[in-house]
Parts: sequence; structure tokens; C-alpha cells
Amino acid sequence: APVNIAVVKYWGKRDTDRYLPTNSSLSGTLDMARLASTTTIHLFPPATAADAGADDRFELDGAAHAVTPRMARVIAEVRQAAAAHYGAHSAQATGRLAIHSANNFPTAAGLASSASGYAALAYALCHLLGLEMSPSEISAIARLGSGSACRSLFGGWVRWAMGDPALDHTVEGPRQSIASPVVDAAHWPQVQALICVVSAGMKSVASTRGMQQTVATSALFAERVRQVPDTMHAMETALVARDFEAFAQLTMRESNQFHATCLDTQPPIHYLVDTSFRIIDFVHAFNAHAGEAVVAYTFDAGPNAVLYF
Amino acid sequence: APVNIAVVKYWGKRDTDRYLPTNSSLSGTLDMARLASTTTIHLFPPATAADAGADDRFELDGAAHAVTPRMARVIAEVRQAAAAHYGAHSAQATGRLAIHSANNFPTAAGLASSASGYAALAYALCHLLGLEMSPSEISAIARLGSGSACRSLFGGWVRWAMGDPALDHTVEGPRQSIASPVVDAAHWPQVQALICVVSAGMKSVASTRGMQQTVATSALFAERVRQVPDTMHAMETALVARDFEAFAQLTMRESNQFHATCLDTQPPIHYLVDTSFRIIDFVHAFNAHAGEAVVAYTFDAGPNAVLYF
Repeated sequence: APVNIAVVKYWGKRDTDRYLPTNSSLSGTLDMARLASTTTIHLFPPATAADAGADDRFELDGAAHAVTPRMARVIAEVRQAAAAHYGAHSAQATGRLAIHSANNFPTAAGLASSASGYAALAYALCHLLGLEMSPSEISAIARLGSGSACRSLFGGWVRWAMGDPALDHTVEGPRQSIASPVVDAAHWPQVQALICVVSAGMKSVASTRGMQQTVATSALFAERVRQVPDTMHAMETALVARDFEAFAQLTMRESNQFHATCLDTQPPIHYLVDTSFRIIDFVHAFNAHAGEAVVAYTFDAGPNAVLYF
Repeated sequence: APVNIAVVKYWGKRDTDRYLPTNSSLSGTLDMARLASTTTIHLFPPATAADAGADDRFELDGAAHAVTPRMARVIAEVRQAAAAHYGAHSAQATGRLAIHSANNFPTAAGLASSASGYAALAYALCHLLGLEMSPSEISAIARLGSGSACRSLFGGWVRWAMGDPALDHTVEGPRQSIASPVVDAAHWPQVQALICVVSAGMKSVASTRGMQQTVATSALFAERVRQVPDTMHAMETALVARDFEAFAQLTMRESNQFHATCLDTQPPIHYLVDTSFRIIDFVHAFNAHAGEAVVAYTFDAGPNAVLYF
């Protein structure tokens, strides 16, 4: 599965149990030849353990790791679908899993490896167990591992719809928080992404914890959430029209607003560093010199810049 | 006149001609023995120049400088009051001025020298010309040089009321945007301020231009303006009650929200640098270790921290 870089940011859950976001988001999918997670899974039936997942194995880039609670959530969700389809005692629903995942880029270097990793995990699992699901349906499962992973089920430009909060209490409601394509990669092939690794260290505040602090303490966050639907609409319009000027302005404003609400969090969250700000100033000076937007920056929850141009 | 450091920030004008702010603000006045501007003015009647101010002289820290347009505004306002009181052709209204100002601290090092400087100028001028005005009335004149200067007419903790926008079109309306004391210095003498000079260089974006960019382009700014009245009320309550915990939390949130709206500006304004963020993280860690707020940071339009403790 590929990596995706959001231009309308996901930050904040309205439901932390079911990974439902406070706002819709939108990303560009990067070329899999450059940045991708490849995941291979073996199924060993029958299982002997009563608690599903306890005996599953996980290897990342050749090294054994524990199955994380978020991986276990994704696996449990797929097993539940398998149980509904094949029966609770079927090999598909109870088999032990050996998961081998590898990234063709540095893991944990602020390059969104959790998005590609959980997308690959969800897709490979559904495929292995013979569950016939659309990429959007699989995206709702990948979302349980890492929110932004749901957008890595598609190429091109991808929206993640927040779903209707009024339906959150229903079984079907949470399944509407899924990813779907806006335009495919062939629609606007001229746009390139350049990743500037400012720091490859671990981020100072983990996204999951950071976004909940923002939801709980930022006095400006609710206003941002109110504005995102307009931003989404404008961004989709710019993509369909291949309007780089509009796309660039929206992308930079959106990145800055996301980091502004981080800074408005108590205690404040600050992912951008001096070098990040030098890149921001450079891009604005460069565009001013060109007389039009020829490059746009966006920063996820870290100091690394992604430049779209 | 003393320097003041805002704990509820002034950022944004609703009227750039008359220096009327978008929101009320509140500051602590520092000890004049440490940071103050001392201004001495000589009046040479009669004036020969038809255009008032053209022949005025200005010396800062011993070096000759041009009278700036903002100084000329303050001088013109006082001359107008002198003309109303003594007559348009009086020596007070037409005399040539020789202004000598000196700071007992480094000028232009991000230490709010414009606040003390314009407060001293307005006070000295009104005093010299024998105009009987209250400090609040003088504050409305100092405001025309630098908004935050109006708060330097008082010691202790000082509010600058934004005034009623509905009256802006009247003559009297703008005169209601004045400073007045909340509690005097003797009310809470335990509170100290420590200024941490992170960088003594000129700020990257001048406040006057920066705040207008924020008003014009930040999508979150209007929401901040809506929230300031509640913040002002909570801050005044904390000061009256000498409640350091509440004061500290409000001060830090307010500083962060101000810088968040700067970052939400297009192009983004970023005054804080890596060292500023290290101070922020240190203060939160220190308070967490103490189990209560024992120190609070605030940052004006620059990287330097003021710690209240």
C-alpha cells in the first residue's frame, strides 16, 4: 500500500473507540515505487488459543515485533467479518497469522509509514481470507489501525468522509466513515511531491494523544472543525479543475491552521522547528518572486516538509 | 514611563487610522528601576514653520533620529488639545519641540521599548504644555504612537478597554479606548517577572503590519476576538483574588492562542523559535513536577520569553 500526504488534515476524533474523526480530510497518494509498505500474511489453521490474536506473529523490516493493540483491532475486525461469512469456528475466523511487513523507505522517520502499513495490513488480510470487500469497505477497517491509513487504499487524490455523527450510535453509521477517490492519479500527473526530511527522529507528541489534547483544550479547534467542510469543497474543486494556484493556497493555509490549533493546545504542541519555518518562508518568497504559486508546502505531525509543485 | 508586558494580548486593529483595537488587553507593568524610558522635552516658542512638527528634534539614547510619523501623530494630538485650551496661535500649540529620550535597557531588543517610549512622550508633552489630563486621557494619546503604550501610563496590572465599536463614528467614541488600572502594584507584590532574551535582533515581521495581515487573512482570528472578553473577565478575577494558578494557566493559553493566530495568518507569522519552545516545554515540565503552576510564560511579537512567577 502507498503512503499518502494530507492537504486537508485529519486531526481529532469525535469517537476514540471507533476512530471516527472530527472532520473530513483529503490527501495525495504518493508513488508506490518510492514509498510503500508491502505486507505478506500466512494463515495457520486451526487456532488453539481462545483469545484471537494472542498467538499472531508480526515481523517488520525483518525484525520480530509484538502485535500492537491497534494491529489487534484491525485483525479482530477482519476476523469478525470472516466469522460472519464462514462461521465462528472456520479456519478463516480462528487461524493464527504470521504477518511480514516491509517498507521501502525509513520507518518512523516522519514519513507516514503508519498510513501505508495499516492499509497494507487491512487489504492483505481481507484478500487472504477471501472477503469480497471494496477498497472503501476495507478503508473503514484500516481506519481502526491509523485514521489516515484509510486514505492509502486508493491512488490519486482521496477524501476520507467523516460520516454522519447523527448515525454514530447505529451499527451502520461508523461504516460510513470511509475513504473514496476524488480524482485518480492520471487526472493531474504534472503534480509532484518532494519530501524534505528535516529530522528523522521520533515525533515529540504522538498523533493519537496530541489530537485528543487539541480536541479537549484548544479554544480555536471547534472553529477549525466548522470551517473544514468549506475547505474540503474548495480543495476538491481545485483538484477537479487542476487549479494549482487555488490548490497551493488552500494547502498552505490548511497546514498552517492545523499547526495553529496544535499551538493553541494546552500544553502547546509544536511540531515545526526553525528549519521548517525557513522552508515556509522560502516557499512564500519563491512564489512571490514567481508572481504565482509554483510550490506549496504541507507539514504533518512533524517537522518534515512535503512540497507539492 | 515603565515597560508593560501583556498577559491578554493586543493584536489587531478594527480602525487603523485611529488605532482602535479589535479586542481589550491587559498587562503587568514592570519596575521602572529596571526597564523604563525617560523623556525630557524643551519647548522653543514661537514656531516659524507652518506645518507643525516639521522642525521638531528627536534624540534617542544620545543619537539624533528623525521624528517618526507615529511620533508626529502623538505630537499633533497634544498640540490640538493645546490649541483648544490656549488658542491656535499660542506658544503651547505652535512651539518647536526638542525631545530627548533614553532607555535604561537595550532599545529594539524585543523588550517593548515602544510602549514605554510613547507613554513617556505623551505624558511629558501633556505635562510640559500644562494640559490637565488624567493618566487615562493621556493613554488615549499614547495609543496613537503604539497601541500597547497606553497601558504604560499606570503601574500594577492595567486593562486597555477596546471601547464601543458602535461609537467609533463619533468624536467621543475613540476617546473611550483607554487604559485604566485593575489592581495597583501593592496588591500583589509577590509576583515577579523574568525576561529571557532569546534573541536581541529585530523582529521578523513588524507588529503593525503583522497584526493587519492576521486580521485580513486568519480564518481563526474572529473566533479569538469573540473569546477575549471571557479571558479578560477571568484574568481580572484571578488578579483581584491573587490566584496564581488561574493567572498562570490563562497567561500561557493566551500567549499560545496569540501565536496560533499569527501562524494561521497567510503568509504565516512565526515569532517563536526552537529556544522559545524549549522554554515553553521547560515551564510545563517544571509546573507538572511541582504539581501546581509556579511559573507562567508569555511571548510578545518576538522570541523572548517573559516568565511570571
